[in-house]
Amino acid sequence: MIGVAGLGYWGPNLARNFDDLGVLCALCEVDADLRERYTPRYPNARMYAGFDDLLADDAVRGVVIATPVPTHYDLARRALSAGKHVLVEKPPAMRAGEIDELVALAADRDLVLMPGHLLLYHPGVRKLKQLIDVGELGEVLCVYGNRQNLGIVRTNENALWSLGVHDLSVILYLLDEEPELCVAHGRDFLTEGVEDVVFCYLRFPSGKIAHMHLSWLDPHKMRRLTVVGREKMVVFDDMELERKVTVYEKAPWKRTDTYGEWQTRSGDIFVPKIPTDEPLKLECQEFLRLVAGEGDRRKVAEDGARVVRALERLTDSLRG
Amino acid sequence: MIGVAGLGYWGPNLARNFDDLGVLCALCEVDADLRERYTPRYPNARMYAGFDDLLADDAVRGVVIATPVPTHYDLARRALSAGKHVLVEKPPAMRAGEIDELVALAADRDLVLMPGHLLLYHPGVRKLKQLIDVGELGEVLCVYGNRQNLGIVRTNENALWSLGVHDLSVILYLLDEEPELCVAHGRDFLTEGVEDVVFCYLRFPSGKIAHMHLSWLDPHKMRRLTVVGREKMVVFDDMELERKVTVYEKAPWKRTDTYGEWQTRSGDIFVPKIPTDEPLKLECQEFLRLVAGEGDRRKVAEDGARVVRALERLTDSLRG
Amino acid sequence: MIGVAGLGYWGPNLARNFDDLGVLCALCEVDADLRERYTPRYPNARMYAGFDDLLADDAVRGVVIATPVPTHYDLARRALSAGKHVLVEKPPAMRAGEIDELVALAADRDLVLMPGHLLLYHPGVRKLKQLIDVGELGEVLCVYGNRQNLGIVRTNENALWSLGVHDLSVILYLLDEEPELCVAHGRDFLTEGVEDVVFCYLRFPSGKIAHMHLSWLDPHKMRRLTVVGREKMVVFDDMELERKVTVYEKAPWKRTDTYGEWQTRSGDIFVPKIPTDEPLKLECQEFLRLVAGEGDRRKVAEDGARVVRALERLTDSLRG
Amino acid sequence: MIGVAGLGYWGPNLARNFDDLGVLCALCEVDADLRERYTPRYPNARMYAGFDDLLADDAVRGVVIATPVPTHYDLARRALSAGKHVLVEKPPAMRAGEIDELVALAADRDLVLMPGHLLLYHPGVRKLKQLIDVGELGEVLCVYGNRQNLGIVRTNENALWSLGVHDLSVILYLLDEEPELCVAHGRDFLTEGVEDVVFCYLRFPSGKIAHMHLSWLDPHKMRRLTVVGREKMVVFDDMELERKVTVYEKAPWKRTDTYGEWQTRSGDIFVPKIPTDEPLKLECQEFLRLVAGEGDRRKVAEDGARVVRALERLTDSLRG
Repeated sequence: MIGVAGLGYWGPNLARNFDDLGVLCALCEVDADLRERYTPRYPNARMYAGFDDLLADDAVRGVVIATPVPTHYDLARRALSAGKHVLVEKPPAMRAGEIDELVALAADRDLVLMPGHLLLYHPGVRKLKQLIDVGELGEVLCVYGNRQNLGIVRTNENALWSLGVHDLSVILYLLDEEPELCVAHGRDFLTEGVEDVVFCYLRFPSGKIAHMHLSWLDPHKMRRLTVVGREKMVVFDDMELERKVTVYEKAPWKRTDTYGEWQTRSGDIFVPKIPTDEPLKLECQEFLRLVAGEGDRRKVAEDGARVVRALERLTDSLRG
Repeated sequence: MIGVAGLGYWGPNLARNFDDLGVLCALCEVDADLRERYTPRYPNARMYAGFDDLLADDAVRGVVIATPVPTHYDLARRALSAGKHVLVEKPPAMRAGEIDELVALAADRDLVLMPGHLLLYHPGVRKLKQLIDVGELGEVLCVYGNRQNLGIVRTNENALWSLGVHDLSVILYLLDEEPELCVAHGRDFLTEGVEDVVFCYLRFPSGKIAHMHLSWLDPHKMRRLTVVGREKMVVFDDMELERKVTVYEKAPWKRTDTYGEWQTRSGDIFVPKIPTDEPLKLECQEFLRLVAGEGDRRKVAEDGARVVRALERLTDSLRG
Repeated sequence: MIGVAGLGYWGPNLARNFDDLGVLCALCEVDADLRERYTPRYPNARMYAGFDDLLADDAVRGVVIATPVPTHYDLARRALSAGKHVLVEKPPAMRAGEIDELVALAADRDLVLMPGHLLLYHPGVRKLKQLIDVGELGEVLCVYGNRQNLGIVRTNENALWSLGVHDLSVILYLLDEEPELCVAHGRDFLTEGVEDVVFCYLRFPSGKIAHMHLSWLDPHKMRRLTVVGREKMVVFDDMELERKVTVYEKAPWKRTDTYGEWQTRSGDIFVPKIPTDEPLKLECQEFLRLVAGEGDRRKVAEDGARVVRALERLTDSLRG
Repeated sequence: MIGVAGLGYWGPNLARNFDDLGVLCALCEVDADLRERYTPRYPNARMYAGFDDLLADDAVRGVVIATPVPTHYDLARRALSAGKHVLVEKPPAMRAGEIDELVALAADRDLVLMPGHLLLYHPGVRKLKQLIDVGELGEVLCVYGNRQNLGIVRTNENALWSLGVHDLSVILYLLDEEPELCVAHGRDFLTEGVEDVVFCYLRFPSGKIAHMHLSWLDPHKMRRLTVVGREKMVVFDDMELERKVTVYEKAPWKRTDTYGEWQTRSGDIFVPKIPTDEPLKLECQEFLRLVAGEGDRRKVAEDGARVVRALERLTDSLRG
């Protein structure tokens, strides 16, 4: 029922998960060595060399695209055109125009178009979303992400596209709003044209703001999102083993006895137990749910487009 | 020899330090209660109610201005005009035009004009400067400051002027360069027109960049400066008791055997012992040195002006 | 109403607190310089050179003893004999026989005999006690203290008496039981006969156990108490600014489906807001309450004796 | 050349490492399912069901014993009697008499008898040993280990044998001395006769002391060894990712101007880069070196015996 295209870096993880879920029926990879390696591992899946062959396989209802980034848009378009539901690795496209086209195509044919924003399926991020949605934090004022490290230096993708796509997808998911202002600054210290350090600022129509500090030239190893609400603040820290999410009863308040001056108060700190479910498995299950007609497939596609649009605007600002 | 004007919040600390150094000869304070409180504590200092009386005291060679911020420029101007050396609390002026006028006045009369940027006299910051200047870090690429907290909410000064002035003075001191680009973004969540959360980006002619994340609505208590060099990285963390400065042997490097691809390497981490000298005492001693003709008084005044100019440009960007 | 004897190291803090509470009427100090220094600061308190003069002051109902440790027992005995309520710095005596005599004397005359175990009045320790008493932790199994540092090396008191008295008073307060086994081991590395590193093990009739790791030759700065309950665990960490007490939903449990094998589970972590009240002020207030007839003065005296008895047994074990 | 007996929990890791090193020629496992699972994975190794068959394989020069603990002694004895070199998982025996017999047997036949104390091959522990041996720490005074966690609760082995064997092997390796005093205290809270919390104290003829805090009922996750020297202190913390070893310039010192009173001083802190080599691979390589005649095989066997002797004495103390 599910076919996975691309068995290079991330594809094998997707193949394994869909196989564990009992729905993997086809694989597709242009590299002969990789085909040879994975063929014996998945005896129940047909192995194709060409993407069109995969699309021609009638048993395949959903196509998972884990090929190199520049091919995402074209393969997703072809898969949708062939009437397949699509889960496409992030970013699903490199230009807003492309993703808008994909969204329209999926809407026309009532197909699933789901981008693989893994972090959205992290139980810690789900906890943030829930805390916001039930009003636990009060009005959300500011969300900011820190994704810093002395890590893998890429030469084909800058820190915004490589690191920022994670935080951006979460920020837009949490706030569920299209930013009205997208500003980015940064520098390409190592490879010309590929920014290693990027700072992004977003402003939303509701008045909320967001920020991202992205760098692979940094002494701190940080993967952290902070949400500042008017009543509580919450931090998702993916470097923590046991304290992924911390809720702070910290807030400004107006003392009535001091003529409206702002004070601050700090109360309890709470670290809720976060389930240890594997985000990738949850992501794959979500795709299957959407294919099965559950959930809001239009919103999922549109949310993915919002991320690409914001990335494009941030890129324009960065380069401008 | 030294007269201190303003005995409200910070002035008493300056008075005490100059008294300990044996050079306090006069005090000036408009509030009668404060005059009454401090008169017995400093029997060797004359107490004045009016600033002009202080200036008329011929024994006073240097005037220390610790009055409310909006008065700084005017009092500094009058003190310089009266031929007094001046140590003025930060910020010495609120507009670039004002500080430029003060600098010119001091230069004309060959007087000291020293802004009270306390953090510059922190032994940890001195250590950063030394590491940079001897080339230990290699070429400096990026400096960024995090000054965040759920702290005192001000209604007369925004986070940029209240918190950012500290980091900005240090960043400009470390890089010793005038920024060519100053961009700021932020929001006034609590008091209209007073930004609680501010992000600043600076770019320098040499290609270096700097960033400041400033907020008094934050769950994290951070007072941290990070310097990313091409060979080492160093962090000054003022919340640490024992590890104020940490030097990381972390750097990108080009493997010759992989066709020039960038890799990264991590080596030793070093936490040098930082002297526990009181920064305020060191600041007061520096003023006395400058008054005594040692050091470069023109550079000190000009450095102070550079901070005000950058603050003004950041403010324009923030409001724009 | 309250007279404080001893104005050396700790006495001035006690004097200040009782003065703030409006009940300080007398001071006593053998050293003339100290008498001269403190006389002007406390104009409402009579200053005595001799302890007998203090005891002869009829206005003094309660005597606070903050003199050197070897004098505690004798002065407390004389004060009780003179009909005064007594707050005596820790340890109130160096031998079990002495403290038992003091307790009997206080009981006979129905006087307060309160040892100055400051840590018992820390709001964080009170929180531990409350969590235990309401059953939040389930059955308490083990309590252990870590008091380690590269700190003040004493030559007249070993780590057990200097550091351990704090943790021991808290452990006995929390468990409210007399230990049936007291074992100590350690070494005197710097000064002969004065142990720098001491490990203590206590076993209680209920089966609970306790341990103390005490050292002033240690790279870690620790002031921490851990309580392991059968349902929750809680840590009091006095080096933390904002997280003094942390409650862990961590416990062993028996899975019914695995034939009674023990498993463990980890749940939420909770950091309750702890009041920032000054422990010394709370201690002084408690003394006044006891003097005023509130609370259980017999239990307070007996609790103090229990600490001295355990210290004596641990000392015997250490030396044996 | 190497045969691995026991493919349950840990044996497969040993098999894989020796296979990677190109020397695995035989496997032995009584369980048919496990034999079936591992036979195809190691096509170059003969698979035996019986230990005697393994011993009868002339190609096998060294036998690796990874069977359940109670079988270690007997299988090691049989392997040595058959003229095979032996690497046996820890503990190699449960009684001092047994290990002494094995050591004698190995010495008689000049065979390797190496216990699998994995932690000894951790590059961080090697760093501690090196720092001690070159005198960097000055005279070593005290070593202590903390191995605490809410972790796996065992019912067949207490915390001393399950957790303590790691720290004990390292402590004896670092100090290279036979303890003259071995005391242990603890309690069996969950399973009768199986202590969950154990405290051990050791004293050595040189005057050094050591301590172990062992528990699987603890809120803190600690795997830490601290070495206190007279000139420096060093900590090995296996829970740290990047700071496995930290060297503190912290020491007591005698000021000459204060009549020989002890003071303390704190200087730099240093975190040397520790190689990320896999300890198990290093352990396997060490076994091959010893088999090849390099290194001191007598000392390795004797060191292993020292650990078992200390465990036996601590067990006697714990139960006594």
